[in-house]
Amino acid sequence: MMTELKQRVYEQNLALAKSGLVVLTWGNVSAIDREKGLVVIKPSGIPYDKLTVEDMVVVDFITRKAVNKKLRPSSDLMTHLYLYDAFPEINAVVHTHSPNATAWAQAGEGIPAYGTTHADTFYGSVPCTRAMLKEEVENNYEWNTGRVIAETFKSLDYKAIPAVLVKNHGPFTWGATPEEAVANAIALEEVAKMAIVTRQIKADTPVIDSLLLDKHYFHKHGKNSAYGQK
Amino acid sequence: MMTELKQRVYEQNLALAKSGLVVLTWGNVSAIDREKGLVVIKPSGIPYDKLTVEDMVVVDFITRKAVNKKLRPSSDLMTHLYLYDAFPEINAVVHTHSPNATAWAQAGEGIPAYGTTHADTFYGSVPCTRAMLKEEVENNYEWNTGRVIAETFKSLDYKAIPAVLVKNHGPFTWGATPEEAVANAIALEEVAKMAIVTRQIKADTPVIDSLLLDKHYFHKHGKNSAYGQK
Amino acid sequence: MMTELKQRVYEQNLALAKSGLVVLTWGNVSAIDREKGLVVIKPSGIPYDKLTVEDMVVVDFITRKAVNKKLRPSSDLMTHLYLYDAFPEINAVVHTHSPNATAWAQAGEGIPAYGTTHADTFYGSVPCTRAMLKEEVENNYEWNTGRVIAETFKSLDYKAIPAVLVKNHGPFTWGATPEEAVANAIALEEVAKMAIVTRQIKADTPVIDSLLLDKHYFHKHGKNSAYGQK
Amino acid sequence: MMTELKQRVYEQNLALAKSGLVVLTWGNVSAIDREKGLVVIKPSGIPYDKLTVEDMVVVDFITRKAVNKKLRPSSDLMTHLYLYDAFPEINAVVHTHSPNATAWAQAGEGIPAYGTTHADTFYGSVPCTRAMLKEEVENNYEWNTGRVIAETFKSLDYKAIPAVLVKNHGPFTWGATPEEAVANAIALEEVAKMAIVTRQIKADTPVIDSLLLDKHYFHKHGKNSAYGQK
Repeated sequence: MMTELKQRVYEQNLALAKSGLVVLTWGNVSAIDREKGLVVIKPSGIPYDKLTVEDMVVVDFITRKAVNKKLRPSSDLMTHLYLYDAFPEINAVVHTHSPNATAWAQAGEGIPAYGTTHADTFYGSVPCTRAMLKEEVENNYEWNTGRVIAETFKSLDYKAIPAVLVKNHGPFTWGATPEEAVANAIALEEVAKMAIVTRQIKADTPVIDSLLLDKHYFHKHGKNSAYGQK
Repeated sequence: MMTELKQRVYEQNLALAKSGLVVLTWGNVSAIDREKGLVVIKPSGIPYDKLTVEDMVVVDFITRKAVNKKLRPSSDLMTHLYLYDAFPEINAVVHTHSPNATAWAQAGEGIPAYGTTHADTFYGSVPCTRAMLKEEVENNYEWNTGRVIAETFKSLDYKAIPAVLVKNHGPFTWGATPEEAVANAIALEEVAKMAIVTRQIKADTPVIDSLLLDKHYFHKHGKNSAYGQK
Repeated sequence: MMTELKQRVYEQNLALAKSGLVVLTWGNVSAIDREKGLVVIKPSGIPYDKLTVEDMVVVDFITRKAVNKKLRPSSDLMTHLYLYDAFPEINAVVHTHSPNATAWAQAGEGIPAYGTTHADTFYGSVPCTRAMLKEEVENNYEWNTGRVIAETFKSLDYKAIPAVLVKNHGPFTWGATPEEAVANAIALEEVAKMAIVTRQIKADTPVIDSLLLDKHYFHKHGKNSAYGQK
Repeated sequence: MMTELKQRVYEQNLALAKSGLVVLTWGNVSAIDREKGLVVIKPSGIPYDKLTVEDMVVVDFITRKAVNKKLRPSSDLMTHLYLYDAFPEINAVVHTHSPNATAWAQAGEGIPAYGTTHADTFYGSVPCTRAMLKEEVENNYEWNTGRVIAETFKSLDYKAIPAVLVKNHGPFTWGATPEEAVANAIALEEVAKMAIVTRQIKADTPVIDSLLLDKHYFHKHGKNSAYGQK
C-alpha cells in the first residue's frame, strides 16, 4: 500500500540526511495522498542509515492513527497533520534543526529577504512564529505547534512563502511534493546562512526592494515562470 | 576478553572521526563494564584510520592499570576513570576538541539553552568548570580534571545534562552506552554552533523558558518519553 | 556538433557542484567558440546529478537562439551573452550563489583585497555593481544584468579582475577557458570568506598595499609570470 | 633517487588537499634529506588530483637548482630553502592558504593561545611577521619571505612554535617530518578557527595561563612527554 509515496518519502528523508542539514535523527519528511486520505511519515528516532522503505509509517489523515502498526511515527506527526489541514494545497512537509535557520528561530527573528537567492524561493521574509503559551505547550504541544504556524500565515500566502521558523524551535518547510519540500529546506538553510553573513558585513543592510523580489519570485513561480524545463 | 565492548568502543571512536568533530587524534571514547570492573578506551595517539579493534586498551577500574599491555591508553584515561567513579549511572565517556564547544570552553562560558534542539538533549545550560588551581594542574592533572567536572555537577544532575566544558580545554560528554555518549558529543557541538550564531543575530537572546525546556527534555527522556521506538 | 566544448562545459558544471559552491541548481557554466559564433550553456533547472553531456544547450551568439531545441538554456543566458559581447577576450562565464560571495553582494559591498590570496587571482577589490533601476528590472532583466556588470568595468580591467558581484544577487566570474572561470569562482568564494573573517578579527583592516598586490598578481599573470609549468 | 622521500612528500601533499585546508593548487609540502643535501617539493601549479610521485621536484640545497629538470618547483621554493637554512632541526615545511589562519595573517595579528588545543601543539601564540619592506618585495621576494619568518623567531623557539603567519599572506608550518608538518598545518587552522569563535563569544578572553600552557605542551613534547606510544 502506498508503495510509490513511501519510496519517495524514504528517498527524501535520505536526501535530507545527505544534504548536511541534519545530524543524528534531527529531521523528518512526510507526504500526503489527499485522494486516499493517507499520510506517509518517517518513523520516530530511527537513524537514517538504518531506515528502510518499509519503515515508513502510513497514517490515516482523518483518524490520525497509524495504518501499519510496526513503528511509531515521528513525534512531530501532529504538526505535519495540522499543516496538511491548514494548508490545503501542500502535499509534503519537512522539519529540520538545520543550524542557521534554527539560530534565527532561537533569536526569535524572521529571516529577512536580503537578496535574489531568497526571492527565488521565498516571496518575502520567512516569518518566525510567536512564542507558544503555557497551555499550548502543556497540552497537545505538537498540534498547537501547527496551530501557531497557521496563525502566523493568517495574513501571508503559504504557497508563496513555503517555510516558517517556530520560535525557539526550528524550521518547517512544505511544498507540492516531497522533493520540493526538501529543496525548500535546503534553500532555507542557505539563505539563513547568507543573511547572517550579510549582517556581519553590513549590520543595517536593507531588505531587497519589492521590484527585484517580484522579478525573481515570479521568474521561478506562477503561470509566467520562465525557469526550468516545460 | 571484552570482545563485544571493544568492538563497540572501536566503532564509536570511528564514528567520532567520521562525524567531523575531531581532526588528527583529538578525541577518544571509552566504556565501562561495571560488572567486570573493566574499562575499554582508545589507545593514545593512534590515528583513527590505523586503529583496529585489537588496539583498544582494557583497564582495570580498581587498580587503574592496563590489563592488556600492548598499547598505552589515551592520556585522558584518568579523567574517564574519575567520571565513572563520580557518576555511577554512566557507562561511556567521550572527549573531543570539537571547535565550537571548545570555543565556549576557551571563553569560559557555559552554553546557554537557547532552544529546543538544546532541550532535546540537555536539561539546561551546559556548564563550564572553574579554572583549575596551580596544584591541581601540577599534580595528577587528568585525575583533577575529573574532579573539577564532578565538582561542577554538585548541584546539577549529570544524567539530565550529560556534558561539560572544561575551562580552557574542551568538552566531555557521557551516556549509558558508547553510542549515546557519542550522540551527545555530536548534539553538543551542534548546539554550541547554534548558540554562537543565535547571539550573532541577537546578542541579548534570553534562554528558553522552563516550560518549553521541560516539554522537550521530558519528551525524549524519562518514564513518560514519547520519542523513538519502544 | 561542438562535442569537445560541450564535454568541457558539462564537466565544469559538475566541478562547480562538487566544489561545494552551489546547492540544488544554483549555478551555471557557459563557454563560447568565438570562431563558430556558438555558446554552450547548462540547461535551466536540471539537477547536476541528472545532467548529461547531451543536455548542454548550444546557442547562436548572433541570433541568440538555441541551435539544438531539446532543452531550454539557463535563464541567465542573456547575461552570459552580454558578457561575451562586452568582454571580447573571455571565453567562459560562471554564475553561482556561493554563500559568502553572495553575502557581500547582498550587503552591496565589493570584496576588499585583504591579502595575497586575493591578489593571486584578482588585481584589486572585486567590485559590486550599482542597484538596477526599475526599468532595467522590468524589461530584459538578464540582459540588463550584463549591462550593469559591463558598466561597473568601465574603468576597470575585466581581465585583471575576472569577477563581479551583482548587487543583491550574487557573483559572476569569467576566464579564458571554462576551467579557469570555475577556478575563479572557487577563488572568489574563498577570498569572500577570508575577508569576512579578517574583518571579524580586526574591523578596520586596511587593504593590501599596492606593492604586494602587484607582486602577487603579476607573479601568476602576464608575460613575466613565474607560476605553474611552461 | 630519493624514492622514499618523494613518496612521502607526494602523500602529504595529497593529505593536505584531503584535509580541506586547500582549494585549487593553494598549498605545498616539501622535505629535506639533510645528509644528501636534497630537497623534495611539489611542482608549481599542478592540481592535486593530477599529481604523481614522479612529478615531485628534487632540488639541490646548496646550488638551489632542480636536479630533475622535468617540472618547475613550487614558486615558494626559496622560502622553504630559507627555512631549512635558518631552522636546522626541521626537515619539512608546509605552506597553505587555509581560510582562518590566512584571515589572522590578513588582519596582521598572531593567533592567541586561548586553550589547551593550542597548547598541545604550539607553545605560545603563533606570531605574525612584520610587513615586508618595498625592497624585500621587489627583489628576491620568496627568499625575503623566509628571512622575515626567521627574523620573527629571533626571540622565539621555532621547535616549540612550529608555525608562523606571514603578514597579508598566510601560514607556514614545519616539523621533523612531512607528516608532522602537515599535522601542524591542520592543528593551526583548527586553533585559528577556534580563536575567532572564542572572541565572538567573549571579546576580551585572556590567553591561557602559563601553567596550563606548560602542562599541555610538555605533555606532548620533550623528554617527559606522556602522549602517544613509545
